[in-house]
Amino acid sequence: MTNTQVTLIQIDNYGPWTVTPEPRREADLQTMQSRLYADISQFVGNHGGYTFFTRFDNMIAVTNGLSLEDHAVLQESVGNRYPVTLSLGVATGTSPVQALADATELVQDAGSAQDKHRREILDGRVVEAEHGTTEDVQIAHFDVIDATGNYTDELNAFDTFIEIEQGYAELMRHMRYAHDSLSFFVGGDNIIVVCPNLEEPDYREAIAHVEDAVDVELQVGVGRGANAHDAGMGAKHALETCRADGTRVELE
Amino acid sequence: MTNTQVTLIQIDNYGPWTVTPEPRREADLQTMQSRLYADISQFVGNHGGYTFFTRFDNMIAVTNGLSLEDHAVLQESVGNRYPVTLSLGVATGTSPVQALADATELVQDAGSAQDKHRREILDGRVVEAEHGTTEDVQIAHFDVIDATGNYTDELNAFDTFIEIEQGYAELMRHMRYAHDSLSFFVGGDNIIVVCPNLEEPDYREAIAHVEDAVDVELQVGVGRGANAHDAGMGAKHALETCRADGTRVELE
Amino acid sequence: MTNTQVTLIQIDNYGPWTVTPEPRREADLQTMQSRLYADISQFVGNHGGYTFFTRFDNMIAVTNGLSLEDHAVLQESVGNRYPVTLSLGVATGTSPVQALADATELVQDAGSAQDKHRREILDGRVVEAEHGTTEDVQIAHFDVIDATGNYTDELNAFDTFIEIEQGYAELMRHMRYAHDSLSFFVGGDNIIVVCPNLEEPDYREAIAHVEDAVDVELQVGVGRGANAHDAGMGAKHALETCRADGTRVELE
Amino acid sequence: MTNTQVTLIQIDNYGPWTVTPEPRREADLQTMQSRLYADISQFVGNHGGYTFFTRFDNMIAVTNGLSLEDHAVLQESVGNRYPVTLSLGVATGTSPVQALADATELVQDAGSAQDKHRREILDGRVVEAEHGTTEDVQIAHFDVIDATGNYTDELNAFDTFIEIEQGYAELMRHMRYAHDSLSFFVGGDNIIVVCPNLEEPDYREAIAHVEDAVDVELQVGVGRGANAHDAGMGAKHALETCRADGTRVELE
Repeated sequence: MTNTQVTLIQIDNYGPWTVTPEPRREADLQTMQSRLYADISQFVGNHGGYTFFTRFDNMIAVTNGLSLEDHAVLQESVGNRYPVTLSLGVATGTSPVQALADATELVQDAGSAQDKHRREILDGRVVEAEHGTTEDVQIAHFDVIDATGNYTDELNAFDTFIEIEQGYAELMRHMRYAHDSLSFFVGGDNIIVVCPNLEEPDYREAIAHVEDAVDVELQVGVGRGANAHDAGMGAKHALETCRADGTRVELE
Repeated sequence: MTNTQVTLIQIDNYGPWTVTPEPRREADLQTMQSRLYADISQFVGNHGGYTFFTRFDNMIAVTNGLSLEDHAVLQESVGNRYPVTLSLGVATGTSPVQALADATELVQDAGSAQDKHRREILDGRVVEAEHGTTEDVQIAHFDVIDATGNYTDELNAFDTFIEIEQGYAELMRHMRYAHDSLSFFVGGDNIIVVCPNLEEPDYREAIAHVEDAVDVELQVGVGRGANAHDAGMGAKHALETCRADGTRVELE
Repeated sequence: MTNTQVTLIQIDNYGPWTVTPEPRREADLQTMQSRLYADISQFVGNHGGYTFFTRFDNMIAVTNGLSLEDHAVLQESVGNRYPVTLSLGVATGTSPVQALADATELVQDAGSAQDKHRREILDGRVVEAEHGTTEDVQIAHFDVIDATGNYTDELNAFDTFIEIEQGYAELMRHMRYAHDSLSFFVGGDNIIVVCPNLEEPDYREAIAHVEDAVDVELQVGVGRGANAHDAGMGAKHALETCRADGTRVELE
Repeated sequence: MTNTQVTLIQIDNYGPWTVTPEPRREADLQTMQSRLYADISQFVGNHGGYTFFTRFDNMIAVTNGLSLEDHAVLQESVGNRYPVTLSLGVATGTSPVQALADATELVQDAGSAQDKHRREILDGRVVEAEHGTTEDVQIAHFDVIDATGNYTDELNAFDTFIEIEQGYAELMRHMRYAHDSLSFFVGGDNIIVVCPNLEEPDYREAIAHVEDAVDVELQVGVGRGANAHDAGMGAKHALETCRADGTRVELE
């Protein structure tokens, strides 16, 4: 059984800040957001977790292996180095969607994302080290079959992007509603999905669904581990097997 | 008439690099990609341009105001500071989609995105300073009406993301095929669209289309300028008027 | 008794790289170096350590609390994100100078700093968690008395810098040869010194020596802890007492 | 004749900020400072200038080629992305020391570095584009002869640092008081000096002085140009000639 620890990372009162006292330079907002994400990704990654940029003002991380103290250091460090602050909700569960819902509620209960008095919330609970197992996290790493040959080298860059985006949008909805999973585009033609305890037929079904719906061909490698990094590395190696052997689903 | 200068920024041979000699840590890839994007955004932004992360391995920028020499400095600087290199294609036109298609072709003609011998291509042509006008760039800045009240403070963070993503996916396809425009999600509930010479009814039509198709309510501010920053600032101010007055479309 | 764990961080073959195939843009070298340092500082700091930029191509860190596995993650992560690689030597001892000498020797024994075949050395030993004590690290935080009033607001910025530099150069030599300590300028008018088991009279003597030699007046706060962060926070609070009370030496 | 444009970059009210409401984590301060410096170095460098970290809270830049508008963009961009703000003073002159003195005075006249009401000063004047010449900037790039063989591979890392620091401290003072020049350590064993119109015998004299005073052997390449980048590249190439031919002073 999986026991995924999910953290919601929400920038406090970000929308109003971006237009106060008047709209800020877009290039600066983009730079600030993406560097903030990079820093969080690095911090969480150094403890074995994965962070997804999602909407940038609301990021989602798989944080098995990080204590609440680690979360507090991250929050303090960002507060020391950025013009914005973070609120963090942390929850665990066999369903990543349910864990995220619980984590979100902790932050929502403390106030609106645009409440200027709600700052640096840190609430929730973690998988204690002594309860962790090597099956706590299941990660599936999807990509588009021969995306470079079929799209990148053939279509204009935006039409390629539309194709990949369509595949992602369909997979994201399907995995969430049919399989209680959280899917994130991570660049190129790669999608990383945080799953509950799924089996090979589930992945075959999802791939077939996307191909039927939007005609994008996916392959997937799946890994399990005590944290996102371990599970994700298993998934990456399994996906390499797909690429080498022409298979569509490989479980580590 | 618009005359948009578009640059395709493609990381050379990136896919193979990420798995050679074996798959690299995902957190490092995410950190590296988003910092590279941040640096390009900052460089281009300091010259009045906008850069969109798109797929991260293929980024798209509106570069009116940047010469080919500026592009060469960016390319050299990235080569000096990152483990990867960039190829750049630059083209101009009244249709942003056509300009991007031309820019893409310049890079594709030099070799595959996964050709390990194709490195640091720089090709294309720019709007010469003496030919620039204050109507060269048209930027539309969309957001979701009361996204915080309707979604962020109500749904779990992933379901909010799905709603916003659906609105984005629909708008992206519609603006591209009906209006020759390039749409980019830029974080939060914001979408920036690079447009040809569109008028108010075009924007009303697009908003109605998205509402019909996926039930997401958008509002939009539109600006024009000699470069993306000027046009984008106009769009931001116009969008502030929508927010203040409850209107759906404002042209600067 | 102190038991300081010191890491030498050396960029592999950096000098030759900066001029191959021809000299690289200085602004890019400065940017790359200082960001690399920032990343290492953040990584080490998140585990309770301190990193000093020193010469940038050779950085020195106090790494009590970091295992060899942590060092390996840092080395891999930098290799994934920068155009250069790191070699790391780690040693421990009651004398910070001796520990650094031992750490340096581990790297030197593996080859020259300009040997293009020596890459990503990682060697040494750490203070095992079960042997750590809250007196392992002693940190002294010095600053110049009323530097802003006496220098920054009065002299031109370079002459202020010369004054502070002179104080630093004298303190650095004196602390190294008289007190087996490692002194690092950390910005502004602040100097952080990694010390063996020194007592209050040692600090009084050092302050008097610098005042005699170069007429720069220093004050100092001293802290002890299981790692650099804990000891350094004690030192900072002690220095705040100096500032508030007008005293010259405060031990936490 | 040189006509150097010098900018003093001072973080507003930085000292008090670092200890309010209580001392901030040193690793965060180091990370924030060095990234801020990196960003400024990149911005100024993209316009052909050089920035030196100096004390980090007070940085000095050679900004020939940057207008006051460019300075304003830098100031705004930092204000949008960092928790601190910058004040900037800009001045020009045949003597770099005098130009810096004038630039410093502009900032000092507006208030103390620790005045919490003084924020984002921008004052001064630049070399107008039409008055620029290819002799406006003279840069000398020094390094220590065989620093790797004599020091880095032989001594412990701190004793090497002391040797190089001593050479730097002596050169810095001598060039400032004997030759009206500003010297900056830039990492490794490299020192970059911003000079007025000096000739070969001046450099020979300086090298001999440092060797006499502290027994550190230096070599130097010198370049001239319309901006720091052009002059500095000339200096780097000239220094390569020293390294290849064993000469001590080379003028481009």
